[in-house]
Amino acid sequence: MLALRVEKKSLAIKDVNKPDRRDEALVRVLLSGICNTDLEIARGYAGFKGTIGHEFVGVVEHSTSDALVGRRVVGEINAGCGKCDLCRAGDSRHCPSRTVLGIVGRDGAHAEFLQLPIENLFPVPKNIPDEHAVFTEPLAAACGILDRVSITSSDRVAVIGDGKLGLLCAQVLALTGASLLLVGKHSPKLRIAERRGIETMSPRQAAKRKREFDIVVEASGAAAGFALALNLLRPKGQLVLKSTFHGKTELDAARIVVDEISIVGSRCGRFTPALDLLKKAAIDVDSLISEEYPLSNGVHAMRRAGARGVLKVLLRP
Amino acid sequence: MLALRVEKKSLAIKDVNKPDRRDEALVRVLLSGICNTDLEIARGYAGFKGTIGHEFVGVVEHSTSDALVGRRVVGEINAGCGKCDLCRAGDSRHCPSRTVLGIVGRDGAHAEFLQLPIENLFPVPKNIPDEHAVFTEPLAAACGILDRVSITSSDRVAVIGDGKLGLLCAQVLALTGASLLLVGKHSPKLRIAERRGIETMSPRQAAKRKREFDIVVEASGAAAGFALALNLLRPKGQLVLKSTFHGKTELDAARIVVDEISIVGSRCGRFTPALDLLKKAAIDVDSLISEEYPLSNGVHAMRRAGARGVLKVLLRP
Repeated sequence: MLALRVEKKSLAIKDVNKPDRRDEALVRVLLSGICNTDLEIARGYAGFKGTIGHEFVGVVEHSTSDALVGRRVVGEINAGCGKCDLCRAGDSRHCPSRTVLGIVGRDGAHAEFLQLPIENLFPVPKNIPDEHAVFTEPLAAACGILDRVSITSSDRVAVIGDGKLGLLCAQVLALTGASLLLVGKHSPKLRIAERRGIETMSPRQAAKRKREFDIVVEASGAAAGFALALNLLRPKGQLVLKSTFHGKTELDAARIVVDEISIVGSRCGRFTPALDLLKKAAIDVDSLISEEYPLSNGVHAMRRAGARGVLKVLLRP
Repeated sequence: MLALRVEKKSLAIKDVNKPDRRDEALVRVLLSGICNTDLEIARGYAGFKGTIGHEFVGVVEHSTSDALVGRRVVGEINAGCGKCDLCRAGDSRHCPSRTVLGIVGRDGAHAEFLQLPIENLFPVPKNIPDEHAVFTEPLAAACGILDRVSITSSDRVAVIGDGKLGLLCAQVLALTGASLLLVGKHSPKLRIAERRGIETMSPRQAAKRKREFDIVVEASGAAAGFALALNLLRPKGQLVLKSTFHGKTELDAARIVVDEISIVGSRCGRFTPALDLLKKAAIDVDSLISEEYPLSNGVHAMRRAGARGVLKVLLRP
């Protein structure tokens, strides 16, 4: 089968064996989405070698559970050991021995087939088209913010970053009824949020609103975004760190201590709330799709996904 | 009156006018304590010029409230504007226009007299000797941790740093019934905690206990302490940042996001719980007193407070 693989830092489409573990479900991939993490892995982040990709929708071809065969599914990307304290407490997403689809020790979704444990799979409601379902994983990550901080309609919230993740986070947080500001540099991207009634602003304009926000979500992945986020927070405010940085960032310990700021890391999220939002068509994901390519064109697609102004790039096996 | 003052980065005992604001209480200082923040201010931190010191116990000489005159008091060091949203919500500790005793825009406690608004003063119960009451402010700061994170008897908690602040934090947190470890480099200081039944360890030994702790309090003020604190935390753990750093510290955003760590800044705390603990003699502060000097010897006392192995140094006007 075809697979988009990172091998010794080079990225290539390869013809590889179909996966054949009997203890996991085999999923035929219908559509996969390129995430910024894929681009970072291709640059050497996390030292991963193998098939990349972790956003997908597919159909179960084989499974230890007959009920799943033939079902259209999306999949939680973390597979825990099932034995450690964290796994037994239901938190396999943080299992120290976990594999992660296309990221850690497990071939990923930019391929004709993938495998996952059956407990990782979630059937997709009929009314969600493939092009929406493929957003379940990043949308779950956006929803995950609400598992980490409590947001009410009286909160003033800012999201920094108008990329794919920032636009999903802004749309999810807007549903809380909180007063919401999306900060970004790209007018066409900001317009997607504006059409959903979300206020937007450039980083330069936003910098004038020092200490006005209860919660700021950093989703730009830039050190400058982190610095702006700190500046926008009121004393005792919460900074949700949603993306890692390329460069190193300095920690302004004095600001954090004196103003009693909290910095809250947030990574993945649960799939059920994300599927629920997609079922209700509560999130505009169509506007986030920039381009689609056949999997065989995956290397070019990856290049496009990293180009300025491009949002989600999809791959169809 | 005599006062220990920072002027143009030089530290000196000066003869200055007694403070004479009619809208605030006048307090005759009985005893003041030297805090590490005093040492940092003397080095130029916060750009403060004036009388330093913010830990004290004293007697009210004049006041707009007759009930306070003659009373022995300690004092909350932040004085808010009384008008902004934060002050009106009862959080004058974060008022952007606040003055802070001996730290920001207000002469401090290493003097014969000081002034504070009457609402900042707390009468000291009779059974608390002056030598204990002078610890109210730093003990309140230690108690403040419990206003920022919830700690139960089932939590595994580590405190990094065996200085004055670390020893107070460890003693306060031990009262929660949580399993507690104090990490420090100085055997005589660690012994103070051990006498209270607290487990202690060197940073080197502690480094082997990676990801074992639910909550880690960084109270060493060293970048190495912060790095160790992050290493000791389990996924979704909370790092309480209790002290600022001298140098700059790098933020390991990937660790915070991937393991969904929270970093929680904590500065001051409420005085009532601290006075309550002192009244019950629940905290060993006697062992934290290293030396006492007359105020006139304040410059020497400051030098001693910064010496290796020295804990609290007190000044008596």
